[in-house]
Amino acid sequence: MYYIGIDLGGTKIFAGVVSSEGKVIKKMMVLTHRHRPWEEIGDEIVNCTKNVVKSAGLKLSDIKGIGIGCPGAISRDRETIFIAPNLHWKNVPFRKYLYSKINIPVRLENDVNLGTLGVSYFGEGKGVSSLIGIFVGTGIGAGIIINGDLHIGYNGTAAEFGHMVIDIDGYKCGCGNRGCWETLASRIAINRKIDEYIEKEGKNNEVSRLFSRMKNKGKAMIEGYKMGLDVVVEAVDESSKFIGIGLGNIMTMFNPEMIALGGGIIDDLGEFMIPIIKKTVKKYAITGSTKGVKVVHTSLGSDAIMLGAAALAMKG
Amino acid sequence: MYYIGIDLGGTKIFAGVVSSEGKVIKKMMVLTHRHRPWEEIGDEIVNCTKNVVKSAGLKLSDIKGIGIGCPGAISRDRETIFIAPNLHWKNVPFRKYLYSKINIPVRLENDVNLGTLGVSYFGEGKGVSSLIGIFVGTGIGAGIIINGDLHIGYNGTAAEFGHMVIDIDGYKCGCGNRGCWETLASRIAINRKIDEYIEKEGKNNEVSRLFSRMKNKGKAMIEGYKMGLDVVVEAVDESSKFIGIGLGNIMTMFNPEMIALGGGIIDDLGEFMIPIIKKTVKKYAITGSTKGVKVVHTSLGSDAIMLGAAALAMKG
Repeated sequence: MYYIGIDLGGTKIFAGVVSSEGKVIKKMMVLTHRHRPWEEIGDEIVNCTKNVVKSAGLKLSDIKGIGIGCPGAISRDRETIFIAPNLHWKNVPFRKYLYSKINIPVRLENDVNLGTLGVSYFGEGKGVSSLIGIFVGTGIGAGIIINGDLHIGYNGTAAEFGHMVIDIDGYKCGCGNRGCWETLASRIAINRKIDEYIEKEGKNNEVSRLFSRMKNKGKAMIEGYKMGLDVVVEAVDESSKFIGIGLGNIMTMFNPEMIALGGGIIDDLGEFMIPIIKKTVKKYAITGSTKGVKVVHTSLGSDAIMLGAAALAMKG
Repeated sequence: MYYIGIDLGGTKIFAGVVSSEGKVIKKMMVLTHRHRPWEEIGDEIVNCTKNVVKSAGLKLSDIKGIGIGCPGAISRDRETIFIAPNLHWKNVPFRKYLYSKINIPVRLENDVNLGTLGVSYFGEGKGVSSLIGIFVGTGIGAGIIINGDLHIGYNGTAAEFGHMVIDIDGYKCGCGNRGCWETLASRIAINRKIDEYIEKEGKNNEVSRLFSRMKNKGKAMIEGYKMGLDVVVEAVDESSKFIGIGLGNIMTMFNPEMIALGGGIIDDLGEFMIPIIKKTVKKYAITGSTKGVKVVHTSLGSDAIMLGAAALAMKG
């Protein structure tokens, strides 16, 4: 039995043929070109599915279902992409459209929910009853698994942990509130601190030179951290501490069996960040809640959403 | 079919005979006298159970089970009261002891979890799939219902929402952290504000006179609020706002179908507090999460734990 997992991003679309054991048989990438009509992007996904199935040496009739990880909020009935800011989509009836084009069962889900489902089905979370997945990138995305199943909440919007307020008078967040977790714990916080430094210190220093030489801020940050540049190390370590404080809250409230960490910054700097995160969680979580609870860095990496999308298709 | 619900508190023990429809047939109260050995308190519960059954015109054989709401943390296997600060208990094997004395199935659970289960079984939460119960008193206690069942978490410690940090550099909390929700949103916060006022303004003013005349601080607070004393109104309204901010976090993270509010201060001043709470939740919760979600004041009042304890016994 084979399934298709789609990771639909603002820039790239990944499609994978996944076996029922969670093995990625074949993987393919196409560009999203997000400014075209959504129907064209849908057609692109259909084509990409056909191509990846063919190049895996399979036929469409071998595919039992397709799962789509979408960068946004999905309607409660999981029929429509309610809002996807990166794609500039609103109320797109994507499930029905794709199904009409390919005639294989299609399911939609939020991408970070699927990353968490991927960890639960095929990663460190196998057999774990309650799991929180936390994906740290520009912001913080998350998913909740309870009794082996996604908890999407009454309106389908659950697990927006990045917008948990932890500092009521803190920095302004894109959501309109102040002091959301992601304003202190994600790339947003690290970039703010480094930008402030460059602004203040001018161009004639190692940090400014590094960040003007390397166009990719994320890569410059990794380089700067590994070079031991003070402001970069401080910014990342402080972010690790704030990740830990938020996870402490999650431990206190949910007391899950496992917290799985992933996302760009964790995949790049996890070996330095996770020890600080773990220490902070222990300090902040309510007494008795952390005993035996595993805080892990998921090994699924950038395949997490694709694998979760396949798992969703498999659940049927 | 009848069940016994016990609400074991630091001062009083309530025992009720409850029908399978959630009707309290008969209720009885005895004092805890918490400084005696725990076995004596156990025996008191057994006696009280026998008496309340008798005065309901029933026999012990009519009782299918007993649920006990305990003011503390219960071991993961729900056999032992792991720690109950108010009773000064640690590792008390209470379930086994009670069962050996009365020979009717006994189940233990944290009292606030049971308050929430009570709302779910016999109150506003009937038929609601996901429910968060929030009980505001000196601190904030809470319970989580998902798919009709209590979510107690991996170590049985879940739902300690009172210790969710919402103000990282805020007031010191009894748990050791700073800025826990209950330091800003419960009686702790209201009392702090009023105490500071009295400290600063001395004895010759209406507030100080009210609070020295009335020994019971809680009652003085209600009186002061209804009299419109500025500092009391401000303290309570600010507390309502902070309750709303915390509920906003809960909405953003869990997106439950219902949030039920209870506890002393809500039972006393709910009509003034709940409008402020609702307005604040709407402002802080992530877009789309509050649609159709009910925020209610539970009508179960001080019977909530007893009814939840009976529901626990009924679940078997």
